[in-house]
Amino acid sequence: MSQPRLAILTEGLFDDHHAKTAHGVIRYGTREVVAVVDSSQAGRTASEVVPFCERPVPIVATLEEAVERGANTMLIGIAPTGGRLDAAWRARVLEAIDRGLNVEAGLHTILAEDPEFSAAADAKGVSLRDLRLAPLDIGVASGSDLRRPGLKVVHSVGSDVAIGKKAVTLELDKAARRRELRSVYVPTGQTGIAIAGWGIAVDHVLSDYVSGAAERLVHEGGERGDLLFVEGKGCMFHPAYSAVTLGLLHGSSPDALVLAHKAGATKLAGYQVAIPPLSELVSAYEMVSRPLRPTRVAAIALNTADLDEAAARSAVEEAEADTGLVADDLVRFGPDRVLDAVLSSLETPV
Amino acid sequence: MSQPRLAILTEGLFDDHHAKTAHGVIRYGTREVVAVVDSSQAGRTASEVVPFCERPVPIVATLEEAVERGANTMLIGIAPTGGRLDAAWRARVLEAIDRGLNVEAGLHTILAEDPEFSAAADAKGVSLRDLRLAPLDIGVASGSDLRRPGLKVVHSVGSDVAIGKKAVTLELDKAARRRELRSVYVPTGQTGIAIAGWGIAVDHVLSDYVSGAAERLVHEGGERGDLLFVEGKGCMFHPAYSAVTLGLLHGSSPDALVLAHKAGATKLAGYQVAIPPLSELVSAYEMVSRPLRPTRVAAIALNTADLDEAAARSAVEEAEADTGLVADDLVRFGPDRVLDAVLSSLETPV
Repeated sequence: MSQPRLAILTEGLFDDHHAKTAHGVIRYGTREVVAVVDSSQAGRTASEVVPFCERPVPIVATLEEAVERGANTMLIGIAPTGGRLDAAWRARVLEAIDRGLNVEAGLHTILAEDPEFSAAADAKGVSLRDLRLAPLDIGVASGSDLRRPGLKVVHSVGSDVAIGKKAVTLELDKAARRRELRSVYVPTGQTGIAIAGWGIAVDHVLSDYVSGAAERLVHEGGERGDLLFVEGKGCMFHPAYSAVTLGLLHGSSPDALVLAHKAGATKLAGYQVAIPPLSELVSAYEMVSRPLRPTRVAAIALNTADLDEAAARSAVEEAEADTGLVADDLVRFGPDRVLDAVLSSLETPV
Repeated sequence: MSQPRLAILTEGLFDDHHAKTAHGVIRYGTREVVAVVDSSQAGRTASEVVPFCERPVPIVATLEEAVERGANTMLIGIAPTGGRLDAAWRARVLEAIDRGLNVEAGLHTILAEDPEFSAAADAKGVSLRDLRLAPLDIGVASGSDLRRPGLKVVHSVGSDVAIGKKAVTLELDKAARRRELRSVYVPTGQTGIAIAGWGIAVDHVLSDYVSGAAERLVHEGGERGDLLFVEGKGCMFHPAYSAVTLGLLHGSSPDALVLAHKAGATKLAGYQVAIPPLSELVSAYEMVSRPLRPTRVAAIALNTADLDEAAARSAVEEAEADTGLVADDLVRFGPDRVLDAVLSSLETPV
């Protein structure tokens, strides 16, 4: 296959947090992104609309324009709640196939299992790639320590979903590699897989197998390096996603945790559930880990994107005062202080 | 279809805890069980080998003998770790189909998706029933309180798997119905579904949907009665199954918990993981529930099957002293003291 040149579909949602797959792939991915397809923002660039993206990828109104710019693959850049294919996207997927594009998606709806899509793709000779499809031989976790000596695992947990755990994990990995550590970003969801080209979407395996999938990821990560940054999912107090959070935490069996939090958030986005104070979250994540593998939260990773610089600085100070831990916004102020705290925690027995 | 008359296959494992599906269906099921098929125990009865079974179902060596006794359905009575079809059972499933039996199983391996089984079943005109198959439209949990006024939910959690959470749940429901309460046993796994004829195996849904499945079960249970006893799964500190445990706990959003524990157990069966003291388990389950819906452990349900009567009595006393809660072995000494504690807890605001 020729080099992938992505058109990322976010129709109408590019500036919404549900477009996190698009944002992550543009900022952290190594594949060429020739266009974002979103008529609501056409004419602007990705980094103009969402500075986090960093790359000035042109936003176009139609798939046709993306093809003119050389796209050979359409990636669905939205991670909708529940992960099902939006009925409105069906026509776009068929249009992409008809225009000769491969289609990539990270939905719970498996494109390749859809008779209409697979027949159309066969007829056009294009491929359908479902990022969330897990290996068939995943099973229950062994619970044994399968890790080779010298391997260390850092896991990012959070106070909610979609607050930047993946970005934190990627920034820590990048910073560790800059220090010439044999660091590896371990993707646990569709966006991470789209970015790094490997991984398992642990939220798409049978619920009995979440920890088994996490064990497998640590094993595979350990073949790629010595210091693993395993991306977290959800939140242990989330009414919908806590199962995935806890299974991933127990299966990845981390040596240190980083707790991600959106500065100022007091409720889960979209739910009438109060977020406990940071210090309680720290204790809670440490408590649920303890009987299996004691670990501790080494630092707080704040997302201050909604605050101005002064407010961001005081949010960081407040988080440090509340928890007694190092806190920082890794995207805004750089990852080094948090990375220092993580590395120092790895040196200290729990 | 004619009335089901079950032959339960446990070949070689009837006296093992992995045969819990067989034991549960024999003790609590309402369907006729004409034989257990297990050559290692042939000639004895189910209740002779496993007194918990209560019913003196004959154990036979071959499927042929079960058919002679009138069996028209073979149920696989083993719940193997990982839930996959044991290669050795393939021939037995094909033999059962060939003898004109319907086949029922609660595995992660879906019989009806196996081309050889489905072709054979079609040819013989028999049915394949996969108890673990969940409704296709289950999705992520809403997190809203969908419960109608007056509905109360009691959930049994545990210190390990396969220690009798289901039995505790069924005994509490039976006892509540004896008191003329509109009580409902809510099955969350394959054995419960085989017993009660409805339910969802929450360990077989996508991990993102565990809490959604639990919400659905509470909603469906609420159409059947006012006091729901929702069977728990796994343990929140289990290296393999904690994801299912927490998702089910959060999704069922209970008003009261019962904590099941095997008296004297200090490690998880099959794992090098210490079980925390009962008082810590009580706090841990209450802590992980609190931000979503505060609840408390109303009583301890001990499994004293491995102890003599005197040791069982002192284990109960010790558990009461350790936790300050009512404790009892509901199967051995009856469910009423624990039921009293549960009902009184439901009357008292958390």
